[in-house]
Amino acid sequence: MHSTSSRATARELRHVRALRERSERSARGLCFVEGIRQVVSAVEGGHAIEAVYVDETRLQSSVGLEAIERAVRGGARHVVLTTAEFERISSRDNPVGLAAVVHWQPRPLATFHPPAQGLILATDNVRDPGNLGTLIRTADAAGCAAVIVHGGVDPAHPTALRASLGTTFLATVVDAPTLDACFDWASRHQIPVLATTARNAQPLWELGPVRSAVVLVGNEGVGLGEETIARADLRVTIPMFGSATSLNVSVAAGIVLFELARRRVAGEHLTT
Amino acid sequence: MHSTSSRATARELRHVRALRERSERSARGLCFVEGIRQVVSAVEGGHAIEAVYVDETRLQSSVGLEAIERAVRGGARHVVLTTAEFERISSRDNPVGLAAVVHWQPRPLATFHPPAQGLILATDNVRDPGNLGTLIRTADAAGCAAVIVHGGVDPAHPTALRASLGTTFLATVVDAPTLDACFDWASRHQIPVLATTARNAQPLWELGPVRSAVVLVGNEGVGLGEETIARADLRVTIPMFGSATSLNVSVAAGIVLFELARRRVAGEHLTT
Repeated sequence: MHSTSSRATARELRHVRALRERSERSARGLCFVEGIRQVVSAVEGGHAIEAVYVDETRLQSSVGLEAIERAVRGGARHVVLTTAEFERISSRDNPVGLAAVVHWQPRPLATFHPPAQGLILATDNVRDPGNLGTLIRTADAAGCAAVIVHGGVDPAHPTALRASLGTTFLATVVDAPTLDACFDWASRHQIPVLATTARNAQPLWELGPVRSAVVLVGNEGVGLGEETIARADLRVTIPMFGSATSLNVSVAAGIVLFELARRRVAGEHLTT
Repeated sequence: MHSTSSRATARELRHVRALRERSERSARGLCFVEGIRQVVSAVEGGHAIEAVYVDETRLQSSVGLEAIERAVRGGARHVVLTTAEFERISSRDNPVGLAAVVHWQPRPLATFHPPAQGLILATDNVRDPGNLGTLIRTADAAGCAAVIVHGGVDPAHPTALRASLGTTFLATVVDAPTLDACFDWASRHQIPVLATTARNAQPLWELGPVRSAVVLVGNEGVGLGEETIARADLRVTIPMFGSATSLNVSVAAGIVLFELARRRVAGEHLTT
């Protein structure tokens, strides 16, 4: 299978490393993914793979080798790196020897049409890439139709991709240029916006039936802004019983999304 | 208030820095805490503060200054550092200028007596300090009586303390020497152990009434071991609806703990 593999030039390695910068990623519409699960997810998600980078002395996984084959059949270049070269592009302490450059970026909100029912997660100004990746992973597990990202960190940030465990490439991730655009979009599609806030809102468990919703979560430090909360159609708070006055944003989103999923399974939200 | 403040010697700063190592923390029964919220929580939690370290050019917060006063009244030394000295002990990019050395370590399981009813979170071999801190924060918010930590990372790791947002000093954090000891303890106190697993268990939402439980979560990479799962009294899985085959451990714990809290509020668990 490796008859068509090539070696990398120093210039190519510099181009790969440059994808650590958000401006490079968005200018080129590419991102850098590393690790077996992520490369497999990128291939399975049907995204065009520009190149796979392999340190053959390190990569042992048969799953990884299959992903390389599939990527190459799909048109990816297969680039063999030395261990030293791989370490130049890797951002991990113990690289597994598999990485790829993938044509991926969040799709624009204007072209995204939601399903008739169901949940969508929207994030406002989440700044920690680990949190954003975990939010995408959580939304995917809860059966959300999409994650709309407004502001904050780029979902193609290497740490966000890693925390998403590859779900970013299998889920629908959408970029909202402004919060206004997000509210307008939800209104146009007649989906209520449900703001989550740490205080002064309806307890989650008392929320009435919800058939579909854009569940909006805010920034780690300050949550959602007052105006944003006021503009939402619904406002909920997770009841808390200890000294903590707030929850981690991914944990809070998980609790809300899975409570709505529980109701869906129980048939509690099926209003007419 | 600062008439009794002192300066730090290079030797003292080395001793503070040494608390980055787990072996130093457990040998000395001390930990290093940094930031206003954490120092305030350590004071509010009633833990003996050995010393507070202050960069007066940086610290502006009146809440921080009050915490210093309370700590000093409680017997803490008040040590004024230069910005350069503070940066030597800080592990943050933008230190706020307040830190403390606190007498704190998890209490031993053998001396911990649980309340008659309620939830306890237990962690098995959680290795990411951010996850462990978020687990403690989440358990506190869900009203858990304690967090039992077995193996994995130290809850006094600076990153774990930071992620817990100070709740570590307000909650009851317990150290279990072995999983056996944890199961024996639960059995002796007649509390069922509820294992969370990503597959082959009862869906969370179909779980019968639970009056009290030790909710046991596993390692990030591999979850709980098969033997541990088999030994538990109850086994639950969070139903998942996407491509993700697992959830982040803190998110999973949040979903389970808050589902049990929801039932407690709804009166669903009050069996006799």
